[in-house]
Amino acid sequence: MIQISDTTLRDGAQAEGISFSLDDKLQMARELDDLGVSWIEAGNPAANPLDASFFEAMRSRPPLRHARLSAFGSTCRPYVKADQDEALRVLLRVCASQRTIFGKSSLRQVELVLHCSGEENLRMIRESISFLRQSGNPVWFDAEHFFDGFRENREYALKTLQAAAAAGADRIILCDTNGGAMPDQIASAVTEVRKLLSIPLGIHCHNDCGLAAANSLSAVSAGCDLVQGTIGGVGERCGNADLCTLIPLISLKLGIPCLPEGNLARLTHLSRVAAEIMNIAPNESAPFVGYSAFAHKGGMHIDAILKDRSTYEQVDPELVGNQRRFLLSDQSGRAGIYARLGHFLHDLNRDSPEIALVVQKLKRMEAEGYTYENADGSFELLALGILGRRPSFFRVLDYHVLSQQGKGPLDAQAYLKVEVNGQEGINAAEGDGPVNALDLALRKTLAQFYPSIRSMRLKDFKVRVLNSQGTASRVRVSIESTDGVHLWKTVGVHNNIIQASLRALTDSVDYMLTKYVSPEEIAAAAARKSTVSLE
Amino acid sequence: MIQISDTTLRDGAQAEGISFSLDDKLQMARELDDLGVSWIEAGNPAANPLDASFFEAMRSRPPLRHARLSAFGSTCRPYVKADQDEALRVLLRVCASQRTIFGKSSLRQVELVLHCSGEENLRMIRESISFLRQSGNPVWFDAEHFFDGFRENREYALKTLQAAAAAGADRIILCDTNGGAMPDQIASAVTEVRKLLSIPLGIHCHNDCGLAAANSLSAVSAGCDLVQGTIGGVGERCGNADLCTLIPLISLKLGIPCLPEGNLARLTHLSRVAAEIMNIAPNESAPFVGYSAFAHKGGMHIDAILKDRSTYEQVDPELVGNQRRFLLSDQSGRAGIYARLGHFLHDLNRDSPEIALVVQKLKRMEAEGYTYENADGSFELLALGILGRRPSFFRVLDYHVLSQQGKGPLDAQAYLKVEVNGQEGINAAEGDGPVNALDLALRKTLAQFYPSIRSMRLKDFKVRVLNSQGTASRVRVSIESTDGVHLWKTVGVHNNIIQASLRALTDSVDYMLTKYVSPEEIAAAAARKSTVSLE
Repeated sequence: MIQISDTTLRDGAQAEGISFSLDDKLQMARELDDLGVSWIEAGNPAANPLDASFFEAMRSRPPLRHARLSAFGSTCRPYVKADQDEALRVLLRVCASQRTIFGKSSLRQVELVLHCSGEENLRMIRESISFLRQSGNPVWFDAEHFFDGFRENREYALKTLQAAAAAGADRIILCDTNGGAMPDQIASAVTEVRKLLSIPLGIHCHNDCGLAAANSLSAVSAGCDLVQGTIGGVGERCGNADLCTLIPLISLKLGIPCLPEGNLARLTHLSRVAAEIMNIAPNESAPFVGYSAFAHKGGMHIDAILKDRSTYEQVDPELVGNQRRFLLSDQSGRAGIYARLGHFLHDLNRDSPEIALVVQKLKRMEAEGYTYENADGSFELLALGILGRRPSFFRVLDYHVLSQQGKGPLDAQAYLKVEVNGQEGINAAEGDGPVNALDLALRKTLAQFYPSIRSMRLKDFKVRVLNSQGTASRVRVSIESTDGVHLWKTVGVHNNIIQASLRALTDSVDYMLTKYVSPEEIAAAAARKSTVSLE
Repeated sequence: MIQISDTTLRDGAQAEGISFSLDDKLQMARELDDLGVSWIEAGNPAANPLDASFFEAMRSRPPLRHARLSAFGSTCRPYVKADQDEALRVLLRVCASQRTIFGKSSLRQVELVLHCSGEENLRMIRESISFLRQSGNPVWFDAEHFFDGFRENREYALKTLQAAAAAGADRIILCDTNGGAMPDQIASAVTEVRKLLSIPLGIHCHNDCGLAAANSLSAVSAGCDLVQGTIGGVGERCGNADLCTLIPLISLKLGIPCLPEGNLARLTHLSRVAAEIMNIAPNESAPFVGYSAFAHKGGMHIDAILKDRSTYEQVDPELVGNQRRFLLSDQSGRAGIYARLGHFLHDLNRDSPEIALVVQKLKRMEAEGYTYENADGSFELLALGILGRRPSFFRVLDYHVLSQQGKGPLDAQAYLKVEVNGQEGINAAEGDGPVNALDLALRKTLAQFYPSIRSMRLKDFKVRVLNSQGTASRVRVSIESTDGVHLWKTVGVHNNIIQASLRALTDSVDYMLTKYVSPEEIAAAAARKSTVSLE
């Protein structure tokens, strides 16, 4: 069993652009507990008032089921007694199951940054740990810059660990603080420590060389039985070791359990919820949990996967709660198209002539600049259209969009006329730019017929200029929509960005009406009198 | 010396969301050559017509200075003679300095996917390599699934390599196609191959376990002297080994040169230009080249860095052309800003108070979504403005843009009014979309005052949606302009895409007037009577 210690809420909060509110921290702790990590390093209560209120708030909440809370701090300052160091006193009082303090293991850094002697630094480590042991709970020592220190002055670096162990620390975490170590350096340093001390060891790596995962594995092989990291690898500079990579590596590749039985399949979900909480875009190509991690594009690959999934997948996506996806492109061919259509058009088989028609049409559309690999919604509608099975919900008859300088934040207006089953509807809207105005006008007009559209929101909007020829270039607009429950993606291409957006928007509405709106509501729209335009 | 082989244009193009135009490929090849990689694997001419036209187009362009072009393909198909395999014949004819073909090294995959015997697969490898050797140029063998094959059936996997070597292959690339191998597996397999064969070896890793960098280093240590990867690590699923990580690791950590002397400092620039070409957001926390890779947030860290940079930096950012940034202090950037301004504002020095003003303003603009990395024109204008040295050539007083459905190819109209030295000019234009109409109207109106503007053309137009919130998102427009001789780049940010475009366009015109239009013409415009609006 390897223990997982999550430091997203402490070291992860050092990342550029990430800041947690108290609610964020409480929610994240709950999610990490559901995943089943062993430890949550939740913050530094002496340095950060928000972290102090987090520990306070946790006292009145239901206890965590799997994880234990760790509070973080520093050794006492140079020439200050531990029991007179205010930060240490705060750390002693905080309500946590374990306390971790960091101290320097590099003599060079002690002299350069702390301006004190190596001996004084050892005193600080010893006294601070003894002081915190009064809590009655475990005390850990974070050996900052350990691997740099080991390279520069091995004897001193080891002395800092011995001091911590002798003072009663329950575990030492070896830190590659600057992320500059190589996997073989990590292995030999850990092996050396292992020989000298019997205290349990943990590893804390940074990703400045893109080696945080490899370095952590290297430390585990050499004798660390605890791995520290963050969700999504967030952290200062290039981030910390990514637990969403390490947990599957330890579980599936090393074959050592590190989460409660059955919980590994929650990992993909956790990674996406965490990104939401941190308000960052999830890394789509992240190992194991990324949206693209099991996405196949080449036709030959798709063909092989259909014969045997292990041909192009190193692990089964379901083990980590992720999904296989077949991307649609002119490289993917018949096998890919069938794999993508078969699940909702059950009467097709791989050799149906319709499949060939879809492949042909797809190639034509891709030549025009469409791409369906990230637009499942538009692709399904396209296929339904080719097969003569696409219902018609509305038609845009006319629109005008006007944009003017300096008219305040709502500087564009759109008017739009639609036809729904022979009835006309017309409406107008103001927006933040012409596309926003048109989008609002379209949904406002259609909601008169199909009230469910009111629940629809756009989650994401992307523009790509194709084959750039100045401002007259072809434009591809990709949008992601939600009704609060489902998520779908559509695409539109045109020389005019407004027209391209309208295509993606009408596909989005069409897709929602096709999949997620009740037949009763559709029938009611068809039966409505044409008075709606007076609404 | 380790050789670097870039496969961004071939394997990188398998990434979800990436598709290259011919122009993109040509520009990328030029950038990679400037960086000084040894090989550019540029595409599969038999499978992809665009790749075929790339190789054709390169024939009539100036030769590359450092890099050589590699064309990619497959062995002949089962039971087809090499000289009768159409794809191989295309590959033989293409104009490239080297040909790489892939073949399977896993017996299991041969039987499962190719449905032929192991013997037949060996024939395909042998014959295909012999056939391509007629080109007179090197032929390489890509051993697909080598590491999986080696684990499953070592004897057969090695036989495929022996077959390739015996048939005259000049190099073998060992591929971890599914990205599932561990560093120690890579090391022991490469060591085994090294014992058996004296042919040069390369390594090609995927990042499905987050170990592509570590695995590539492991292969180098065991005897591979060529590393293949992509810029930014783009590629199918979780991507390929990231050359922007590996090049610094090999150069700085292993101490082995892999680029022409002095070129390592171009790496950060290349990584950002490549992201622009691929129209993807660069990974801000990427090792070495990321925007945040040397960004320090914690106060204690910043303090220590100021004492000695090595306290929290594993390498000097300048070695890879990146910059240190202090997130909580405005001391960052002064040197960088001075470096960019000094060459055209010769009376400034590094400590001029104006530099601090520019830094401040830059920070404010960047917080709004501006980025000047690829917009030198706008940056120079911004700096001139702050220093009170930006001439005023015109002001846009008013505009209206109208876009309507189905009015033919010119479906948008713009009217625009400007003021030039107290004289008003007004004009209108029709265009292909609202931005094009506004662009034409602006240049038409201003050309009445400044005739040189008639020679101005837009070469490139890019749109990026920032902090996506549906269609009301913030939009950044980047344009590249030319007068036939010079090239300059400007940027505009706004919620309204039309307004953002107008900002980039007016900067572009202003920049041209500042730099490339004669003082006589500027003076004539000022002296002109206000009758121009009747033109």
